[in-house]
Order: sequence, then C-alpha cells, then structure tokens
Amino acid sequence: MAVSQLWANIGAVVPEIRGCSQSNQIQPEVASKSPSRRLKVSPQLNRWSRARALRSGRKLDRPNPQIQTLQSDASPPPLTLSSDTDVSDNDVVEGVEVRVAKSIYMVSDGTGWTAEHCVNAALGQFDYCLVDHGCPVNTHLFSGIDDAEKLVEIIKQAAKQGALLVYTLADPSMAVYAKQACKLWSVRCTDVLGPIIEEIASHLEVSPSGLPRGASGRNFPLSEEYFRRIEAVEFTIKQDDGACPQNLAKADIILTGVSRTGKTPLSIYLAQKGYKVANVPIVMGVEMPKTLFKVDENKVFGLTINPVVLKNIRKARARTLGFGSEARSNYSEMDHVRQELEFAGRIFAENPVWPVIDVTGKAIEETAAVILRLYHDRKQKFTMPTISKRY
Amino acid sequence: MAVSQLWANIGAVVPEIRGCSQSNQIQPEVASKSPSRRLKVSPQLNRWSRARALRSGRKLDRPNPQIQTLQSDASPPPLTLSSDTDVSDNDVVEGVEVRVAKSIYMVSDGTGWTAEHCVNAALGQFDYCLVDHGCPVNTHLFSGIDDAEKLVEIIKQAAKQGALLVYTLADPSMAVYAKQACKLWSVRCTDVLGPIIEEIASHLEVSPSGLPRGASGRNFPLSEEYFRRIEAVEFTIKQDDGACPQNLAKADIILTGVSRTGKTPLSIYLAQKGYKVANVPIVMGVEMPKTLFKVDENKVFGLTINPVVLKNIRKARARTLGFGSEARSNYSEMDHVRQELEFAGRIFAENPVWPVIDVTGKAIEETAAVILRLYHDRKQKFTMPTISKRY
Repeated sequence: MAVSQLWANIGAVVPEIRGCSQSNQIQPEVASKSPSRRLKVSPQLNRWSRARALRSGRKLDRPNPQIQTLQSDASPPPLTLSSDTDVSDNDVVEGVEVRVAKSIYMVSDGTGWTAEHCVNAALGQFDYCLVDHGCPVNTHLFSGIDDAEKLVEIIKQAAKQGALLVYTLADPSMAVYAKQACKLWSVRCTDVLGPIIEEIASHLEVSPSGLPRGASGRNFPLSEEYFRRIEAVEFTIKQDDGACPQNLAKADIILTGVSRTGKTPLSIYLAQKGYKVANVPIVMGVEMPKTLFKVDENKVFGLTINPVVLKNIRKARARTLGFGSEARSNYSEMDHVRQELEFAGRIFAENPVWPVIDVTGKAIEETAAVILRLYHDRKQKFTMPTISKRY
Repeated sequence: MAVSQLWANIGAVVPEIRGCSQSNQIQPEVASKSPSRRLKVSPQLNRWSRARALRSGRKLDRPNPQIQTLQSDASPPPLTLSSDTDVSDNDVVEGVEVRVAKSIYMVSDGTGWTAEHCVNAALGQFDYCLVDHGCPVNTHLFSGIDDAEKLVEIIKQAAKQGALLVYTLADPSMAVYAKQACKLWSVRCTDVLGPIIEEIASHLEVSPSGLPRGASGRNFPLSEEYFRRIEAVEFTIKQDDGACPQNLAKADIILTGVSRTGKTPLSIYLAQKGYKVANVPIVMGVEMPKTLFKVDENKVFGLTINPVVLKNIRKARARTLGFGSEARSNYSEMDHVRQELEFAGRIFAENPVWPVIDVTGKAIEETAAVILRLYHDRKQKFTMPTISKRY
C-alpha cells in the first residue's frame, strides 16, 4: 500500500479520534456509513507499511488537509526566552536538514507531571524525527501556576516563541483563562485532562472538585494506598541485588537474571506502583539463595537478554566502573556472557513455572507492563490479562 | 456564591475545555462574547467556594444540562467479568449511600501507563467521593492490545458492565476500530493521546509514526537519556540513608531531614526522572557528614514537617517495625520529635542557602515538583521557574 494512500486513510480517521469524547456531535448517517469502509484496512498491514516507511528513513508526508491548513500559523519567527534557550533553540545538527527546534509549553496548576507524561508519550510517536533527525523539540514545564497573571505571562511568551501549549488546569476558571488567552494571542493549545474529567464526571454522575493537587479542600493525599507505595519502595531498596534473602517470602514479585538485565531499575519501577519487589542476581558459579526455591513459584520472574546486546551493555558498564581487576576482567567477554546466560537458562529450565522475559530492546516500562500483566492474570479469571484497582 | 450558581458557571465552561484542541470548530462570535462574561468569575473565589462546599461534605450537584442528558445511559445493570470483580463491584459501604462501583476500562496497544496515569490524575478530581464516600470506581487496565479481535472483546465486555472506556491506541486503524465499536455498543469512550498527538503533528508539521511502543520500526528505546535514568536510580539506591557520604559531590540533588520526612521515596521519585539523588538523615546527637558542608550549597534541600503529623507517622512506623528497644523507644515521643525537628531547624538556619520544604500533607509528587522547580530555576534566567528538556 502506498504511503500517501495510507496517510489518506489515517487522515480520514483524525476527526473521529478527536471527536471521540463528543460522540453526541457526530452525525448518525456518517457513523453508519463509515464502519464498512474503514474495516477494510488491516491494522497489521498499516503497522507494517508504516514500519517499512520509517525504517527506510523517509519522513512521512501528511496529505491530511486539516493539518495542511493549520501549518500556516505553526512557525512564526521564534523569539527566545533566555540566552541558554536561545542556543538550544537554534542548534544546528550536522549532516541533516537544519531546523529550528519547536517549543512545547506545559502548564499546570498542580505538579505538571500528567502533562509531562502525556507530552513525553505523544513525542514517542515522532521519535523517528526528533533531536538529530529533523524535528527537534524543546519542552518547558511550568507547574503550580495557580493565578491568571502568571498564566497569561506564560501564554504571551508561548505566542512569542510560536510554541504549542499543553495544559492541565483543574480550576475551571483557569482553564477558561487559558482557552481565552490562547485564542487572543493565536497560540495553539490542548487541554490534557479536561475531556477525561468530563467523561468521568458524566460516568459517575458527580462533579469534579475543580481543585488542583495540594489545594486546600482536596483530600489529604496520604492514604493507606499511598503509604503502601512508600513501604514498597523502602522494601525494594533493602532487597536490591540479592540482599536479605530471608525476606524473599515477603516480596510480591521476585526478579532474577544475570548482571545488566535491568533487575534494579525494573524493581524500583514496580515498587513505585506499590509492589514489594526483591531481585536476585544470577552469577555463574555462585549458588542461588535456597529461599528462592521455597517461595511461591508464581511470583518469580526470570529475565534474559540477547548475548551480543548484553556484552555491549556490560562493556559500557565496565568502562563506567573502571573495571580492571582479574576478578571481573571476563565480565564483558563474549564467551563468559554466553556461558553465564546458559547457566541462567539451566536454572530457568529447572523452574518451569517461572516466566522468562527477554528484555532485549525493551524499555523498563515495557518489561514492567509484561510482568504485571502476567502477575495479575494469575490472580483473576479475567478473559484477558488486566490490572484492576479500586478507587 | 451559591454552589448551584457556581456550578452553572463551571458547567458553562465545560464545552470550551473540551473544544480546546478543536479551536477551529468554535464559532467566532461565541468566542468574542465569552471573555467579558467569564472573566468576572474570580478563580480564587471559585476555588474557595468549592473547597468550602467539599469540606462541608456535601456532594456537589451538576446543573450542567449536557451531563444530565448523558446520565440516562450511565448505569445499565452491570454484569460482571469474574467472581472477584463481582464482589468488588457490589461492595456495600457502611454508613453511606449504597452505590455500585462504576467501572473504567483502560485500553492500550502499548504499556497502558499513560492511560493509567491520566485516569489516576483525573480521579483526583473526585477523591471527595471515591471509595467509601459514595462513588466507588473500579479500573481495569488492558495493555498490549494490538489486534482488533481483542479490542472488540474488551469493548463488548465494557458495554455489559456499563463501563467508561479510556484508550491510547497509537495505531490509527485500531483507534478507528475502538471508536466504531464504542459507537456500535453505546460505550462512552475517550481517546487520551489522540488529540495531543494531532496538535504536536501540526506543530512539527510531520506525521505520527502510528506505531505502539515496542513495535518494530519504533526507535530502539535505550537512548543515552534512558541509560542516564538507570544510572541515576542505581546511584540513588547506593546513596540511600546517608550511605557513602564521600559520593555527595557526585549527586545532582541532596535531601536532608529527620527520619520519616520522606527522603527515601522522594529520592527514588526524583531518580526515576533522571536525577542522581543522595539523602542524608538528620538524627539528634549524630554528627552530619563533613562532606555535606563542602558540596555546592545550591543542590542541598532541607525537609521539615509538622511535629504532630510526624509523631503520628512515626507511631505507625514504630508499630510496623515493632520497635521496643530502649535505643529507639523515644522515636515517636512528642518531646523527642519536637527536639529533633528543632535540632534540624538549627542546622538549616546555619545553612541559609538550603531551601527548607515543609512536606506536611504533601504527596511525594508534590514535594518533587517544588524541589525541581527550585533546582531548575537556579540553572536558567527564565522569568518563571520551569523544567526544560530537549527531545
């Protein structure tokens, strides 16, 4: 399928995606016609076509007319905020099309972490062209913006820079200010949480408090769940790298694998989500703690990785730590890496209940998603793996 | 201001909040009229009024007609997914209006963490009535949903349960499937990232890849920035609770305060964001490491807390750890707590450059936001504190 044709399909999709939380605005006849036409496009095929296009290094063009019209106001001559932004905004990257970095402003009357998380995730859709690939982006996070004056100052600045404004403003009046000021100074803006909050309000049939995080009147944040998360983090730190094997029974999740399979950052990531995690390193020739084989098998997860990738990660690591001693000199040798992975493989084979996850090329967040799917799947009779919570 | 009148104002705001990322759809005359009318409402007043209403324990009613009409299809007889959901969905909370828990389904073709983060943040707007306050919610996260069959099965299940569907589907064809299936089975749904991705695409004038995280074709996620984050987490764990004071110079941020001011979870939270953090406990009568006073003062932050709150947190902590020994018996005694906080206060007074942050009633995320604002503010000449990044 031609890329242009592909994007024509995708272009047609856009209004619906954006209109989703306003389904009542979509005309029934359009809706009734669309399914038959759209369902002909195979998601699998789409994904492959896009992947091919991206691997070829070609930048995808967008025939989507809606976008074309918006482009005109996308790049006014960007004034700069400060000398150091000045430099970064005008970085010239060797070997590729020189392009001034675009700015994204994130504004929140709370912590701003939700806006940051969403912009970060959204930028993942453009990682094929970010930084040194032709469309560099500078993000600026303004948190705790709880009065209209500050808000207006930021929006004026965004106008000067030709920046996109992404905001989460719990206070409805502040959201109105933002909306109006952006219109006034022609700043393109988008509200991250407003639509979800509205849908949830309708779903629960109650009103949002309109109070930013930490505002007086918001519930005291230190709930039981909250303390559970803190306890999980503290437990996980104490259990890092095979410490206190006598506590393995107390862990919710136990990770095991050879050095540099990401046990520690993965443990911490899971701990932040409220799970008590212990990680047990597999080192060739070193006996595993007996307690590991006495605990509930269902909470143990093995981590493996491609030997070549592991070798390279270990070489980098060895440089960082400045290894030179005989004891660890073979740490990043290909033969040793292979043997250690085989050693781990035998332990995994002897414990067939442990799921073994290949972390090659996976970000911590991705491996965490796989582990928690498996972990929760065993705890319920859901038709499909899910992570359920009570609020 | 009467609550009903207040909500009439807020109700009027809603369409604009939701319409923000479709500014082109809003009629100019409406926009031009609205400012003068809206700007009469003081955000401060709004916030106070809502806070008062909430503290009074009264559930806020919503005169917003749009919501009223949506209520009708909000609660069909909820069928259940599994025996354990069955129980939780029908929990009866003593002392308050009996209400069946509403369900929110989160679906993603990636990790699902963005949907979870946003739903979690949005639910913060309803914390005055969640769980045992009248509007309990069960969330179900489905991640890695990359084929239409699974997607449709989940949406059918959502229809049976009368659940709200919140999704992040990078693959545009999947997003169309979701949209169409929700329409077909009358499931209220909202797309979390679609609108932001569209805005960014227009802003950067390039197309989103449409590839979910981890899909072939997406950039290898293990960037330099990524390894920096892992290194920060590993550094921070090694520096926990005053360990290796000789490394304080290598830290980006140093936290100091008495026991139970949240130094450890705060350090880890900041480390996840890529900062090397060291935390140094203040214990009455124990000398602080000399290196702390030799490092750059601008990276040291003091934490303090209300003595009564600290006493209660310590009492709970003491119970958990089962303290009984003479050595720590006064750990949670009011006098000792006060004296230790005064001792810390004197150290802070001797180091006036250290900002001192009161963590009383603050969630880790909030304190982290305050610290990072101050930390970055010192590194730039921005007119307002901001955290800037390059993508």
